[in-house]
Amino acid sequence: MRAAADTASWVSNLSHFGARLDAWTALTTRIGELDELAGISAIIGWDEQTYMPPAAAETRGRQSARMSQLMHERATSPEVGEWLGILAGQELGEVPRAAVKRALRNYERATMLPTRLVSELATARSEGFNAWVKAKGSNDFAPFQAPLQRLIDLNREMASLLAPLQGPGAHPYDALLEEYDPGSTVADLRPMFERLGKELNVLLDAVSGRPHPPGKVPSLDVEGQRKLSDRVLVDLGFDLNAGRMDLAAHPFTTGLGVGDIRLTTRLQADDFMSTLGSTVHECGHGMYEQGLPVELAGTGLNAAAGMGIHESQSRLWENFIGRSLPFFRYLQPRMAGIWPSLTLSPAELYSAANRVERSLIRVAADEATYNLHIIARFELELGIFEGKLDAKDLPAAWDDTYRRVVGVVSPTVRDGVLQDVHWSSGLFGYFPSYTIGNLYAASLGATLTAAIPDLWDRVEHGDFAPILAWLREKIHKRGHTQDAPRIFKDAVGDRDPVADLMDHLWHRQGQLYGVSRG
Amino acid sequence: MRAAADTASWVSNLSHFGARLDAWTALTTRIGELDELAGISAIIGWDEQTYMPPAAAETRGRQSARMSQLMHERATSPEVGEWLGILAGQELGEVPRAAVKRALRNYERATMLPTRLVSELATARSEGFNAWVKAKGSNDFAPFQAPLQRLIDLNREMASLLAPLQGPGAHPYDALLEEYDPGSTVADLRPMFERLGKELNVLLDAVSGRPHPPGKVPSLDVEGQRKLSDRVLVDLGFDLNAGRMDLAAHPFTTGLGVGDIRLTTRLQADDFMSTLGSTVHECGHGMYEQGLPVELAGTGLNAAAGMGIHESQSRLWENFIGRSLPFFRYLQPRMAGIWPSLTLSPAELYSAANRVERSLIRVAADEATYNLHIIARFELELGIFEGKLDAKDLPAAWDDTYRRVVGVVSPTVRDGVLQDVHWSSGLFGYFPSYTIGNLYAASLGATLTAAIPDLWDRVEHGDFAPILAWLREKIHKRGHTQDAPRIFKDAVGDRDPVADLMDHLWHRQGQLYGVSRG
Repeated sequence: MRAAADTASWVSNLSHFGARLDAWTALTTRIGELDELAGISAIIGWDEQTYMPPAAAETRGRQSARMSQLMHERATSPEVGEWLGILAGQELGEVPRAAVKRALRNYERATMLPTRLVSELATARSEGFNAWVKAKGSNDFAPFQAPLQRLIDLNREMASLLAPLQGPGAHPYDALLEEYDPGSTVADLRPMFERLGKELNVLLDAVSGRPHPPGKVPSLDVEGQRKLSDRVLVDLGFDLNAGRMDLAAHPFTTGLGVGDIRLTTRLQADDFMSTLGSTVHECGHGMYEQGLPVELAGTGLNAAAGMGIHESQSRLWENFIGRSLPFFRYLQPRMAGIWPSLTLSPAELYSAANRVERSLIRVAADEATYNLHIIARFELELGIFEGKLDAKDLPAAWDDTYRRVVGVVSPTVRDGVLQDVHWSSGLFGYFPSYTIGNLYAASLGATLTAAIPDLWDRVEHGDFAPILAWLREKIHKRGHTQDAPRIFKDAVGDRDPVADLMDHLWHRQGQLYGVSRG
Repeated sequence: MRAAADTASWVSNLSHFGARLDAWTALTTRIGELDELAGISAIIGWDEQTYMPPAAAETRGRQSARMSQLMHERATSPEVGEWLGILAGQELGEVPRAAVKRALRNYERATMLPTRLVSELATARSEGFNAWVKAKGSNDFAPFQAPLQRLIDLNREMASLLAPLQGPGAHPYDALLEEYDPGSTVADLRPMFERLGKELNVLLDAVSGRPHPPGKVPSLDVEGQRKLSDRVLVDLGFDLNAGRMDLAAHPFTTGLGVGDIRLTTRLQADDFMSTLGSTVHECGHGMYEQGLPVELAGTGLNAAAGMGIHESQSRLWENFIGRSLPFFRYLQPRMAGIWPSLTLSPAELYSAANRVERSLIRVAADEATYNLHIIARFELELGIFEGKLDAKDLPAAWDDTYRRVVGVVSPTVRDGVLQDVHWSSGLFGYFPSYTIGNLYAASLGATLTAAIPDLWDRVEHGDFAPILAWLREKIHKRGHTQDAPRIFKDAVGDRDPVADLMDHLWHRQGQLYGVSRG
């Protein structure tokens, strides 16, 4: 394979040992193969959420399971362990060392889980998801309780099997965090989230009941929204030669392979700001994927460094840039071109995009409150994996936590404990990535502002190239050569992301609501 | 697997031998797995031709090759041979017997080809296709000659390796026919095609220079054509719950798995009849796929019986139904609903859809001339596999054959020997399926007319259900339980398809051009 040949030179310069070079060539060839299989899996997953006809659901489920099985087999076959055994602990260049480290982590995690557990988890996810859809539809937690408990049990078992890899003193939840945001630990996140929660509550209390400048976007036809979305995508820097945008009920971005990044958005006639937010958010994800270091293909390092940093890219574009006043100065003439009768000013659009209130639903929450939703879930998940909460306890625990952390309680389970799809799909440990992303984005935004003195002037004129270039250099092109916390630190230096996020929110919301920090 | 469990009962009723049941269960499980992999391969192929961004081409090529390799490995692994060894020659019920026969044929064909040849063919196809694109673009055969010769050599080698499976006295080309239209042989096709060619020439000479009733469709907007295509699709009986229609430069239909049949069409503002033809043609393919016997999933018999019969379904709908006067009586009011200013009568539309002339390009040819294009290719391919023609001989041989068979000669190689993609992709033996399909369709049409006395009245009123029901019963639901010639014979009885096709053409074209059979 080409990738293997390219990167092999880094090793051969360092070593005269044939076995080492053979192992490296074999390993990178296998990683290339696994990348191909992962891309194929992503294609069929993308299609499932965009174009697949309803009657195909069962067939597609089997096809997806087949791909997962093939990937697991190829990832865990004994020869991979042998190659890693030859390579581990040897003196290697920076890239091969990082590649071997990452491959070893993946191999150890994959081989520590018995096939029985992997298969039971797949079944429990499928059953859990179906039970959740039903439970949410009927606004009744009962039919979801047993499937959820099953998922909790299996995830606890998985976490305990993986725990030895986390080293001594690790929290049981760390093994789950490692799956989605390698390098993050409960020990780091808990104090940071606690502090953030307190400070967000101060802000929300301050703006609560205060008047907000006027600004309300009327219903706008979806054809025009599509046109505007396409335009914004290209202006921000997404390369349509190497990707595309389609529509999906739940917008997402996925990489189908080098040169093929797919993002999706949702067009909502009655909620222009939601369409815009989706498009810009997914565009941020997509541009990260498009900026990954293609020259590291076959090493496993041509990949995102984790979901937290992935989310930092989407949130930086969605919130820091995409909800700024200069951005609406850029956007407003483009909107007027599509909807000539629309007379909202940039300031009114800015105001409409930045209303803050304690709300029930995570996915519809504003830039500030959103993080309280995550902190609530983080606390609940810690309770589950510390053995304090079981499925039967979750409806009450959800409401208690929401009352305390977010300051609202849902009158229904549909908008309460059943609001998210994640647990039903066996995703425990995923939620923190969202707020890690917001925190990273805040410090990246502050650093960007210092690095590009005319940043906002450029945004206002639709010149986003310097921002993208900076992110390419500092984040994208590093791929997964390091874990995200290190990449972040190299990019921003010794910054305090909680302080950066709160500064940003006080600055933006304080100005809009006419309040300042006490 | 569910499919294996369902079908295993057919065997277990007949047998108390554990080994036989185990082998049957193992075989059908493997066939189910191969169906899943084939479906996945079809998904990524469908995407490649519909939505894939340009920069993904190289990655997608590797992903496709990876799927082919996985399928080949799973299809040819030694245990498949062992299961077939246990099952072959035993007393089995009708379905397992057919399934084992088909599986054995696939296994023998796959294992007879050395991996070296399979891999060289894959490379030669890729190189051949690229060379053809270039050659066609520059209207110059030279850069295609060597890659084409390579493909010819490899296909000759393949044909000779597979020849023993065809039995004594087989033509070298039979092994290639077997790939696309199992059951067809040169011994059957050659006399039939010769006779058809002669009779078509009589018809074409008769209409040549004769006046044709007026009727010309003006340029029609593609949005309206899309709307009409969607409507026609549903009216004909395609189930959009279990499939969909997208756009592609070269329309095709593909089955991605049970419940997921994708068809594509091409909207041409300046050529409404071409759009309509594409849509109805692909719809015919799609309805065949949707009618395959899902209860035979996992046996390998839940599949088309060959490309000839597949093509019979598309051509029956496209030509016999879709170019008929009653069809345009059904369509004209729907067209007027979309384009109120359009004043063409059903008779004028019918006339516009049925112009006949000796023409250069196969894909744009009329219902009659089309078959001459195929006969020309059939003769050339026979020459290649009888060792009389090599790549260097083909440009001149093409022109000679066209002059003799079709009655026209292309002034350029672009519209001559380079017009088709097939050879560049290593598809030799595929072309006859098109005319086999037209012949089958003619006899099916004649039988349908007898079976449904009010056929044309129903068509005129947009009631296509009895036609689809008849095809479901006679063709679709039989899947690949038998080879196509047998399914065809069971459906139409002892008919002469050449006579049926000529009767149909003389009836339709004779009436339009005011000529009758001498």
